[in-house]
Amino acid sequence: MVIRSSDVKVEKVLSMRGGKGEVEMTHLLSKEIMHNKARLFAKMKLSPGSSVGLHKHEGEFEIYYILSGEGVFHDNGKDVPIKAGDVCFTDSGESHSIENTGDTDLEFLAVIILL
Amino acid sequence: MVIRSSDVKVEKVLSMRGGKGEVEMTHLLSKEIMHNKARLFAKMKLSPGSSVGLHKHEGEFEIYYILSGEGVFHDNGKDVPIKAGDVCFTDSGESHSIENTGDTDLEFLAVIILL
Repeated sequence: MVIRSSDVKVEKVLSMRGGKGEVEMTHLLSKEIMHNKARLFAKMKLSPGSSVGLHKHEGEFEIYYILSGEGVFHDNGKDVPIKAGDVCFTDSGESHSIENTGDTDLEFLAVIILL
Repeated sequence: MVIRSSDVKVEKVLSMRGGKGEVEMTHLLSKEIMHNKARLFAKMKLSPGSSVGLHKHEGEFEIYYILSGEGVFHDNGKDVPIKAGDVCFTDSGESHSIENTGDTDLEFLAVIILL
């Protein structure tokens, strides 16, 4: 099955996880289609200055694949600059946040896989 | 943990799954780090004319997220043109192949999640 980004639900979330500004989430695959083995497969877009606030994952891990832009990834206690092509891995029990510190949109793919 | 594309193993596979030319696989995450819930998280690069041959998945499903370029995705029996931003979902029991029919590299993220 081929899913076009233009055909799926786009959700706009204000102050996501207590972060700044607005996050645009393009939900590419539902958890049902992924047999409940993963619960998120979405493209995220943060405008300059926007962020997803700090939060913890339990019983699941999350992968970000940075598509474009640049920012800072708060990686379970330390700040790491990130750019296109980087992967941010947050294991179960770990916390993360991400902020667009550049002057263009920060886009990334977010995948949450259940343990 | 942040993984840089430039720091990980790049594998070049000739005639992958019986396909044409060479496929460059950048292995971003190992199955061990993904708790054996997923067995592939890689960026794939096919030069013009290259392809991954037709093959079937069983006991797992695969997701392609097209990053750049264009091509044809053989979707369990039918050919579908694909471009950046599209998602190709191949469920357990289904077959797929992908070919770069454009004149630039076709790049996509490949994720295999186990059932």
